[in-house]
Amino acid sequence: MSNKFHAAEIISVGTELLLGDIINTDAAFLARELASLGIPCFFQSVVGDNPGRLRATLKTAYERSDLIFLTGGLGPTCDDLTKETAAEMMGKVLVLHEHSYERIKKVLASRNIPETDNQVKQAMLPPDAIVFDNDYGTAPGFCMVNEEAGKTMILLPGPPRELEPLFTERVKPYLAARSGETFYSVNLGMFGIGEAAVEHSLRDMMEHDENPTVAPYCGEGEVRVRITARGKTEEECRELCAATEQRIRAASCAPYRPGILDDYIYGIDCESVAEGTVKVLKEKGLTVSFAESCTGGYAAKRLTDIPGSSAVMEGSFVTYSEKTKMRFVGVKAETLAECSVYSEEVAVEMARGAALMTGADIGVGITGLATGGDVRIYHGKEEALPAGTVFIACVRGDAVETTCLHLDPGRRNPLEGREFIRRRASSQALYMALCMAKK
Amino acid sequence: MSNKFHAAEIISVGTELLLGDIINTDAAFLARELASLGIPCFFQSVVGDNPGRLRATLKTAYERSDLIFLTGGLGPTCDDLTKETAAEMMGKVLVLHEHSYERIKKVLASRNIPETDNQVKQAMLPPDAIVFDNDYGTAPGFCMVNEEAGKTMILLPGPPRELEPLFTERVKPYLAARSGETFYSVNLGMFGIGEAAVEHSLRDMMEHDENPTVAPYCGEGEVRVRITARGKTEEECRELCAATEQRIRAASCAPYRPGILDDYIYGIDCESVAEGTVKVLKEKGLTVSFAESCTGGYAAKRLTDIPGSSAVMEGSFVTYSEKTKMRFVGVKAETLAECSVYSEEVAVEMARGAALMTGADIGVGITGLATGGDVRIYHGKEEALPAGTVFIACVRGDAVETTCLHLDPGRRNPLEGREFIRRRASSQALYMALCMAKK
Repeated sequence: MSNKFHAAEIISVGTELLLGDIINTDAAFLARELASLGIPCFFQSVVGDNPGRLRATLKTAYERSDLIFLTGGLGPTCDDLTKETAAEMMGKVLVLHEHSYERIKKVLASRNIPETDNQVKQAMLPPDAIVFDNDYGTAPGFCMVNEEAGKTMILLPGPPRELEPLFTERVKPYLAARSGETFYSVNLGMFGIGEAAVEHSLRDMMEHDENPTVAPYCGEGEVRVRITARGKTEEECRELCAATEQRIRAASCAPYRPGILDDYIYGIDCESVAEGTVKVLKEKGLTVSFAESCTGGYAAKRLTDIPGSSAVMEGSFVTYSEKTKMRFVGVKAETLAECSVYSEEVAVEMARGAALMTGADIGVGITGLATGGDVRIYHGKEEALPAGTVFIACVRGDAVETTCLHLDPGRRNPLEGREFIRRRASSQALYMALCMAKK
Repeated sequence: MSNKFHAAEIISVGTELLLGDIINTDAAFLARELASLGIPCFFQSVVGDNPGRLRATLKTAYERSDLIFLTGGLGPTCDDLTKETAAEMMGKVLVLHEHSYERIKKVLASRNIPETDNQVKQAMLPPDAIVFDNDYGTAPGFCMVNEEAGKTMILLPGPPRELEPLFTERVKPYLAARSGETFYSVNLGMFGIGEAAVEHSLRDMMEHDENPTVAPYCGEGEVRVRITARGKTEEECRELCAATEQRIRAASCAPYRPGILDDYIYGIDCESVAEGTVKVLKEKGLTVSFAESCTGGYAAKRLTDIPGSSAVMEGSFVTYSEKTKMRFVGVKAETLAECSVYSEEVAVEMARGAALMTGADIGVGITGLATGGDVRIYHGKEEALPAGTVFIACVRGDAVETTCLHLDPGRRNPLEGREFIRRRASSQALYMALCMAKK
């Protein structure tokens, strides 16, 4: 049979999805992975644990697609519908898979859970299934192939923390091996440039490049571009990726932004600007400290999300009130009186104080408005500041960098607007620390 | 025609969903809302912007469901496929809807965006459509009814920050009005009890109660139970909710937990324990300060997520190293030497120091292990501590409460395990501050 898939489809099984109790991140994850492997996916659907409706959905999928992913419905509390219905459609029977049974027994023993019939059922698989061992749960994933019909069906457990590594570690290499190819990805982390601008710069590559594929993933104020190559060897893939990376770096950002994309790339294979910041600080043997007002600990929280961040930060401050700005990090009363609390000058004093109090190499100060506008009196002049005005300063020895963000919460509601402003401001603070460390 | 729906279905349109660029939170949101309105929903699907596949999906839905939600594909950059295909199936034509056109023009003017044909297309609607004004974007939502066929189709814009308020503010009242009923919800926030325990206690009500409906929503370590009643008047709904609330409060938590659910309810109509904490602190006129080690600012960040939190917190500390624990919040070197940094004693000194340094009424200290195990020497005795061991202390004047969490990251990978431990520990810290404030 052909090992090139023409149409993939994702079916997620679970009443909790139909009730909206959980969000279908599995479908998004698989869709993204399939896209990067160059396998077109035209449909996603969600059905409950109902035999008739599951069968109808599977039948439709079987008729129009040649690679079907089924997620969920494999756990011990499920009534085994998914597996039995799918196996029946693929012309397979289910028998006890000893290897999986042994693995399940081991997991249960390690968790002191008694063995039950339900638990055993998880090890019932078609005799010719390709089995994907599950290192993060009990139910194994597996693949059924009906050579004659040219159909492949892959069943995976529903919990994302089982499905995602299972796919990455076992299913992806299987799909690669079947096509006689290997896959390799490079991620470019970008900051200070929006989704629209990156997509505009790369549209041609995104739409026409088939190997490597190029796909941007956007967070709040951060863009990650993933390059995925397929080839006979990893070496070949690496070369393909490197060539594409050069083209991406050289791409113009016009008309949205000045310069080329290279100017906005802060790291390779970093998941986030926080990870990039910890990485660079570690490489340079530097430490950082924050004094945060409107972000209220968000920057420190994100830095310490990263394991090993204790090497780059000893301590940080949340200085929400004027009193704590003075008391914790030595902001001067005169500066507050002359420039107001919302000012570059106060941000700089906060940054200096944070560095001084902790002995950190780099200090960052953040002050501004996350919700509601306010009026500041700056050197005697009254000025209205809207929510989204945030002053950030980053110091290292005598070097000082400052930024004033004017974030537009747009038509977001106040709570979302607040989150948007705080997240963007903390991203900017982390990024400024990263740039300062690189200098 | 009947105003009772027997089978709803959600179709989401968008290539970005099929490519996994965005997660389908719209489907989860609508599914949850429909469940609370007692409207059964059996299918969800995702299709791209392809006329043939969209038509096929719509046709299947039209045959099996009487209420179809279509999300996405209404914006200015879409090629209007969704609307035209749906209208055709419902036997409707599209004409310019003056009211919507005026609204769109106003929004464009306020954003300095030039008017284009694409923008105008957003105002093309069936003449007999029920139109839902969009206060958060340009494309209006609308409803088409085919009385003869007994079919209702509701089209909504894709961005969640448009769809969610549009549904809550306009679509839900419309559905209520059509059924001659009104809806009313009460949310009970619970802490210190898991999803499984709450579901066990409420299973009977969840499965059999039709009015009000009872549905739990779970976050990490937090459970929210939503009671939704429908009736002729809000008064009637309130009474129905109140009666159900009493039954929920009285429900036994056996065998999972001691006591009744009432023991775990921290607030009504709070979205999170952070919101509940800010609410109670404000009511009591109290302030709080944190000294955080392993949570690295997570507790402060979550408290300051809530607008108005400046009234209840002046400042907080991230004391990641031993040095900053001593320097910022006055932990004694002797205590660190005798008890190790991972101890109740150090947590108490951190809490006291945080309160003292800021003049806050309540101080909270958090110290423990978020990643990787460690060995502590506690009063000369060596003891292995696994990741997930977190000591939390909360002080107010002479009152002291302490907790040692033993969180099991299970088979999560290290990054997820770290997030799980840090989030749970910060939730517990917020909850302890809430309880201390109530005393």
